Amino acid sequence: MEGSENKCMRILGLDPGLRCTGWGIIEIEGNKLHHIAHGFIKTDEKTILPERLKALYHELQNIIQQYHPHQAAVEETYVNKNPQSTLKLGEARGVVLLAPASLGIPVAEYAANRIKKALVGVGHASKAQVMMMVNYLLPACGNLTEDAADALAIAICHGHYYTSPLV
Amino acid sequence: MEGSENKCMRILGLDPGLRCTGWGIIEIEGNKLHHIAHGFIKTDEKTILPERLKALYHELQNIIQQYHPHQAAVEETYVNKNPQSTLKLGEARGVVLLAPASLGIPVAEYAANRIKKALVGVGHASKAQVMMMVNYLLPACGNLTEDAADALAIAICHGHYYTSPLV
Repeated sequence: MEGSENKCMRILGLDPGLRCTGWGIIEIEGNKLHHIAHGFIKTDEKTILPERLKALYHELQNIIQQYHPHQAAVEETYVNKNPQSTLKLGEARGVVLLAPASLGIPVAEYAANRIKKALVGVGHASKAQVMMMVNYLLPACGNLTEDAADALAIAICHGHYYTSPLV
Repeated sequence: MEGSENKCMRILGLDPGLRCTGWGIIEIEGNKLHHIAHGFIKTDEKTILPERLKALYHELQNIIQQYHPHQAAVEETYVNKNPQSTLKLGEARGVVLLAPASLGIPVAEYAANRIKKALVGVGHASKAQVMMMVNYLLPACGNLTEDAADALAIAICHGHYYTSPLV
């Protein structure tokens, strides 16, 4: 990654879910991390599935068109024991992966323990430890919901592996 | 559905899968069924998931823009015992539901036994019986792959319930 340390890179982290998808955007400039924005997208449980997926897709596209990330990273979803829940999670995840890909943005995927390792140093860190590290690394982000903290953690993880591929 | 029997309606049936998604388009004019087109979309197993989903989405959008269906119908996916397979199926299914919905086309979902009942009369009909009925109802469709036959069966099922909502 010769020279990449001095370039400014904007990363969109995404934590997919049909009920709620967390998103967070950071910028990496040399070895500095900057918080750009974060939030979550909720879909209306009373609406039929195709319309919920459409709303999720359009909101994601709006975020991408507003903040112009160069890269996207998505958590490899935890596979639930309930097959119906796994299917629903998959449906949301398909749309979450598609939204940046369809706009030409490269999308990476990371397993949960790899994200924890990048943030806290161990693959079995607690959610509270991950959130604490997100707040420490991005002090400007303020109070975070769990979904948005996870999304920012995924973005930080991608920045970590992308700029230090041998770690 | 007063008066709807005499209108011409074009229906896109979709049988979702990450490896192969079947599609079929029929037209209903009064009580007549016409075969318009059918096919399948394969995605490259060697490509990363976001790119496979993007290829599936774009091919579906091309088909919709070429044939202009008024309605779409998707099979409610069989939930596999393997959670990883269910997740993959869900990811493809999310994109398959999104493609018509994002172009403003209403999307209905049907359970497999409801599709079989509409075609053959019983909910536990075999795949061979369903394919035979698709060939009988749409003699112009010629030789079909299983995925395309399933997709045409879904389209016929939707036409059946849509024009006879009390059945």
